[in-house]
This record gives sequence, structure tokens and C-alpha cells, in this order.
Amino acid sequence: MAYTNTRNLRIEWGDCDPAGIIFYPNYFRIFDHSTAMLFEAALGMTKHEMFKKLEFEGWPLIKTQARFLKPTRFGDDCVVESTVNFGRSSFEVAHRLSCNGAVCAEANEKRVWTVRDASGQLKSHPIPDAVLAKFA
Amino acid sequence: MAYTNTRNLRIEWGDCDPAGIIFYPNYFRIFDHSTAMLFEAALGMTKHEMFKKLEFEGWPLIKTQARFLKPTRFGDDCVVESTVNFGRSSFEVAHRLSCNGAVCAEANEKRVWTVRDASGQLKSHPIPDAVLAKFA
Amino acid sequence: MAYTNTRNLRIEWGDCDPAGIIFYPNYFRIFDHSTAMLFEAALGMTKHEMFKKLEFEGWPLIKTQARFLKPTRFGDDCVVESTVNFGRSSFEVAHRLSCNGAVCAEANEKRVWTVRDASGQLKSHPIPDAVLAKFA
Amino acid sequence: MAYTNTRNLRIEWGDCDPAGIIFYPNYFRIFDHSTAMLFEAALGMTKHEMFKKLEFEGWPLIKTQARFLKPTRFGDDCVVESTVNFGRSSFEVAHRLSCNGAVCAEANEKRVWTVRDASGQLKSHPIPDAVLAKFA
Repeated sequence: MAYTNTRNLRIEWGDCDPAGIIFYPNYFRIFDHSTAMLFEAALGMTKHEMFKKLEFEGWPLIKTQARFLKPTRFGDDCVVESTVNFGRSSFEVAHRLSCNGAVCAEANEKRVWTVRDASGQLKSHPIPDAVLAKFA
Repeated sequence: MAYTNTRNLRIEWGDCDPAGIIFYPNYFRIFDHSTAMLFEAALGMTKHEMFKKLEFEGWPLIKTQARFLKPTRFGDDCVVESTVNFGRSSFEVAHRLSCNGAVCAEANEKRVWTVRDASGQLKSHPIPDAVLAKFA
Repeated sequence: MAYTNTRNLRIEWGDCDPAGIIFYPNYFRIFDHSTAMLFEAALGMTKHEMFKKLEFEGWPLIKTQARFLKPTRFGDDCVVESTVNFGRSSFEVAHRLSCNGAVCAEANEKRVWTVRDASGQLKSHPIPDAVLAKFA
Repeated sequence: MAYTNTRNLRIEWGDCDPAGIIFYPNYFRIFDHSTAMLFEAALGMTKHEMFKKLEFEGWPLIKTQARFLKPTRFGDDCVVESTVNFGRSSFEVAHRLSCNGAVCAEANEKRVWTVRDASGQLKSHPIPDAVLAKFA
């Protein structure tokens, strides 16, 4: 089951480094928010509301990989396409950031759905059916 | 001569700290971009294009002051109203960030218009008339 | 009662913007950590330990003002001198960042000491005597 | 030819998100600076000096991958071990961030050594022998 969300964003002056191009850690900030916006699009609630309304204590990242194909610069208007694929208690999101039709950066994230156990520790947990149903 | 621009923005998870509210240095990142968007609205060009098309090498900040009235949280949809007032080679921008109609943060920036002198050093310079005319 | 702490830091590539100088919101990130290090120096515990061991739920910033006198660049080794002055339930910290003996940036922060009330809301609270005693 | 550098760092309040753990894009900021410090250790000059003294216009990242094994929290004192392996005009850096003896995050970066061609564009270039000699 795959689900895709697309969002637009502007590369800002403060995202860029002395080379005049994006400082690459900021791509991961962009992708992190893209994952939140993908869930918001499917669930109809913000990540903030997810904490209140769902059995959910966050989706820590387990691993990521990224390729940087073309630099982006401040003032660039970009598009991020994010596609999620669900496992049982984890999910993967593939992000593709494009500018003027050219792919500039690609990343894959593997994240775990977590809840708190009786002692207050985070532990992985099957993604709730009610969540999965919204992506169907 | 005052000119105001308004933009919308979402407070992101990555903008917030362990208290769950915005990490305040990120307000200044928001305000810096709000200044760029104000000039873009008036001039019809991005800051990136300003470097290429105008006698312009940046607007370093000389001083700022800010008040933080109410916290904002990830998922909050905010509005920033930014108003510029011009001096001869400097300008001031007043920013007001609101959420659900309540003012959450206010800041004033004083910046200097700069160009490069013959030796390549930045120096302050009167704001070009062609720029001022766009704000009239 | 004033207390001063000094720390050294390096301006990093990723702190700087396309002008090659520090992106000014990063000064506030530096000053925020300088406040934490000042308390750590006096109390002998990290901010993380403060949450566990003290009646303490954070020190939100109420207002700040800053002046930027000389730019700093990646590779610069800087010194931050931070001086705190205590009120009853608030305190002010004055930060001065210098590089090669020249002051580059100055800021003042006004912060409030907070605890949680019965309903879990943050509220201001007198700074504990045990904390003040460490700064005497 | 492998060369390793180690540096210490503190996880700061502002590095962390509402879950109280590091916001993972900040790991990449840490690793980017770790690469700069590795070259500084071997070459005896800052990255800023490298631009002035070497045939060098930056080392853009081509790809990266990372694994996050254990969360780090504000107040944690960490160690980053960074090991470089050189190709002809590219190099790879493996970073391992540990806290209290446990590995918390690992990443690999592949970067390209660049110079400017006659038209001012960045292009890849063999890493200078004088640079390689310092790592021998």
C-alpha cells in the first residue's frame, strides 16, 4: 500500500551555506516535515493532534540514505514528493525534491511507530489499523 | 514611507525544543525570511535576483530586539506581518507573529544596505531610488 | 548578585550563510547554550539534571535585544562571556561574543523561572534559594 | 590510506525536539563539522584557510547514509570518530557518534573535491598530492 503526498517549498537564505547552496542537513529538516505533512494529508490532523488522539508517541528514524544530484539555491521554488510504504510497526518514506523539473535530492527514511510502555519507555508498536485505513 | 507584507507559515516539529514550544532562535530565522519575502513582494524579484540585478551585496543586521508573549507549538499555523521603514542607507523592519489572532512574538530589525567597494569590502550605501520607488 | 561564565566556541561552516558570515539566528542558539553552560558552571549539573533534581520546568525567554558589531566567519575561534543578574522569579543574562579580542556581538536575555501548577500548566515561580546560593 | 580524527561534543537543548532527543538533521550538522575538523587536524589549517591556500572550492556531498541506534539527549557528552578514505577526486568519511561507550549513530559521506573552471563553475578535481601527503 503506497500513498504519495506533494508539497511546495522555497529554499531560504538561511538554509544556505557560504557556497551559496543549501547546507545539506537542511534537506533532512525538509524531509522530516514532509513526512509530517504526508500523514497530515492522509489523517486530516497535524502531528500535534496525532499525539493527543492516537496511540502514538513519535516515529523515530532508524536509518536514512540520501543522494544529492544537483544543488539548490536560496530563492529556488521546489517540490517534494513523498511516498510511504507500511510494514507492521515500521514504515518507509521515499522523498524526491525537484526544482524546475530536475530532481535535486532523493532520500529514504525508515521509521518506527512508537508508544509508551507501562514504565514510560518508548517501544515499537504495530501501526494502528485506523491509521492504515486512512492510507488505503 | 511604510510598507507591509504578510505571510503564512506553519511551526514545524523541528522548530521546537524539548519543552514542546518553538526554540526561540527559530523566530529570528522566520523573521529573516519574512524580510526577504517583504522585499520580494515589493520588488517582484527574489533576494537571489536582487544580488544579480541591483547594486546590492546584502543587508547585514545591526541590531534587533524581540518580545515573546505566548509560546507557539508544532502544528500551529501562524501569520507574520512585516512593516519596513526606510532611512538613507539603513532600514527597519517590524515583525509581528500571530497565531489564532493572538500576538505571540514581536521583533524589530535594523539593517544596512551594502555594496562592495573597490577593494571588495562591504560598505553601507544609500538604498537605490529604484528600490525605494517600488515601496512608494 | 552577578555571576559570570566564559566559554570558547568555533564558528562552523554550517553556521554561516551565502555572505560567508554567521547567519545571525545562530548567535541566539549560541547564547541560549551559553546560558545553560553558565548555570551548569554554578550548579554543577547539566540543564537535563536540573529538570530532574530541581523545582524547574524551564526558563522561557520573555525578551531579548542584540547588537551585531563585527561579522564572524567559519573557522573563527570565539569567546562568550555571560553574566547573570537575578530578580525574584526572573533573571537577565548579558552575553558578549568576542573574536581576537574584538567584541562582535552582544545580547541581553530576560528569562522567567517556571514550574508546573496543579493542572500541568507552566507558571513563573521564585528562583529557589538553593539555586541562588550557588551563585553567591 | 585511512586517517581518523576524534572530537568531543555536547548535545545541546536546541539540538533536541519535543521528544527530548536530538532532532536527527542535527546529526548531519555534527558530522559535517566533524569532516572539517578531520581535515583541520591533518592539514593544520581551518576550512576557511583551505579556500585561500589550496586549489579548493568545497567538498559537496554526493550521497550519505546513516543509522540511528540509540537516542542522545541534551546534556549528553559525546565522541565522534571520523575516518576518511581517499579516491582520486572523491573521498568517503565514516562517522561514529558514541555516548558513554555506546554507539548512538553512524554515517557515511561521499564527497567530491571541487575547484572552479574557467567559467566559474564548480567541477570535480583530483585531490592535490600536497593534501594527500598530510594524511599519509
